[in-house]
Amino acid sequence: MIKIYGKNCVYAAIHSKAKIESVYLIDDIYKKDKNIVSLLDDKGYKYKLVSKDVMNKEFGDSHQGYGAIRADYEIKNEDFLSSLPKEKGRVLILDGIQDPHNLGAIIRSVDAFGYDLIILPKNRSVSINKTVAHVSTGAIEYVNIMYVNSLNSVVDKLKKLNYWICGTDASGDTLAKDIDSNLNLALIIGSEGFGMSKTLVKASDYLITIPMVGHVNSLNASVSCGIVLSLLMANKD
Amino acid sequence: MIKIYGKNCVYAAIHSKAKIESVYLIDDIYKKDKNIVSLLDDKGYKYKLVSKDVMNKEFGDSHQGYGAIRADYEIKNEDFLSSLPKEKGRVLILDGIQDPHNLGAIIRSVDAFGYDLIILPKNRSVSINKTVAHVSTGAIEYVNIMYVNSLNSVVDKLKKLNYWICGTDASGDTLAKDIDSNLNLALIIGSEGFGMSKTLVKASDYLITIPMVGHVNSLNASVSCGIVLSLLMANKD
Repeated sequence: MIKIYGKNCVYAAIHSKAKIESVYLIDDIYKKDKNIVSLLDDKGYKYKLVSKDVMNKEFGDSHQGYGAIRADYEIKNEDFLSSLPKEKGRVLILDGIQDPHNLGAIIRSVDAFGYDLIILPKNRSVSINKTVAHVSTGAIEYVNIMYVNSLNSVVDKLKKLNYWICGTDASGDTLAKDIDSNLNLALIIGSEGFGMSKTLVKASDYLITIPMVGHVNSLNASVSCGIVLSLLMANKD
Repeated sequence: MIKIYGKNCVYAAIHSKAKIESVYLIDDIYKKDKNIVSLLDDKGYKYKLVSKDVMNKEFGDSHQGYGAIRADYEIKNEDFLSSLPKEKGRVLILDGIQDPHNLGAIIRSVDAFGYDLIILPKNRSVSINKTVAHVSTGAIEYVNIMYVNSLNSVVDKLKKLNYWICGTDASGDTLAKDIDSNLNLALIIGSEGFGMSKTLVKASDYLITIPMVGHVNSLNASVSCGIVLSLLMANKD
């Protein structure tokens, strides 16, 4: 089970018919949200009205009056690769993202730009926790997530499935706009501190760079991911 | 004075010749960074070698061995508007950003994409604090920041200076790529929860939208800002 909190996050769980043990609402929720209780009744979810103190204790102080105890998010296993689109597929591979805020923001972008799957390494990565869910503002309910033991091995499998591997690196020589958006694409974003691993750089068919003109010459990982995802979004017919 | 911490943040302050009262380094810094002490000597900065416990106490636990007590960041006053570029100028207006992580990531993008100025409202906005500085990974040393009492009034002034006002909104009808990048542009990003104020929507010459295909249909504020900044980056000759 996972504790989720925040209006968007709890609403998304309800709308996507997630397995929820119980919804917690602040006792004066009627004052600011007339719809939530009838929505919960309609969908057949149980809820508890509790004081702000109880909410704070159970869900921290960013709950906005909404909390829920939800079944763990479904994690896809590698069999899911065979159900990926055969045309214009879009996969995001995260090579060691550490910050839950970045992962949450990235999940939001993955939903917004129509990507079919996010792949994370089992080790060397932040995992799906309540902060990630909260920062995703509920987008986590709509994305497919897979953990793998080896990113190198999953990249090989994706190549066999006719996916083109697009690494991202400051030393890259390809602009995202120059990549044929009709291809199946697997985009790799490196970790906050260290970028992509050398073996994944080597395995990439394209190495995408984002043109910059500043002094620091690097972007927040979720920002650079969002920029490239938006340029290579899934424009499916 | 402001306490800054983290390797990138402290290095950027040194390289940009910031006014620093004292630099704090963890006492075994030599083991992982042979250059910092000679750099500090070269630039004439004083430093103290302290234990990890002292560092943690003074700078929290994200210091990576580096901290400094720095003069407050310089904030531009409205006179600075007259020194903005007359051609291909780029201004970013933040209409009520609340989250220091978002503001830090946005400052990083502002540096990376060559924007001339960030304008923040004095009220209704997170201010420049040590978290913002840290998340900016030092980019804050290289950007021009202005606080104003009224965003509406500064938008009027920018219009008189021949800047075109580009709001951003899900209801917008303009793609960033369709805006003439030779113009002077002032881009407005709304707050995390509420977007742009109605008066600023009305004052906008263009209302930019980012095409999305997902369920949640919204992006993290720093991600959407990064996407639009990158599309309208300052390509100065």
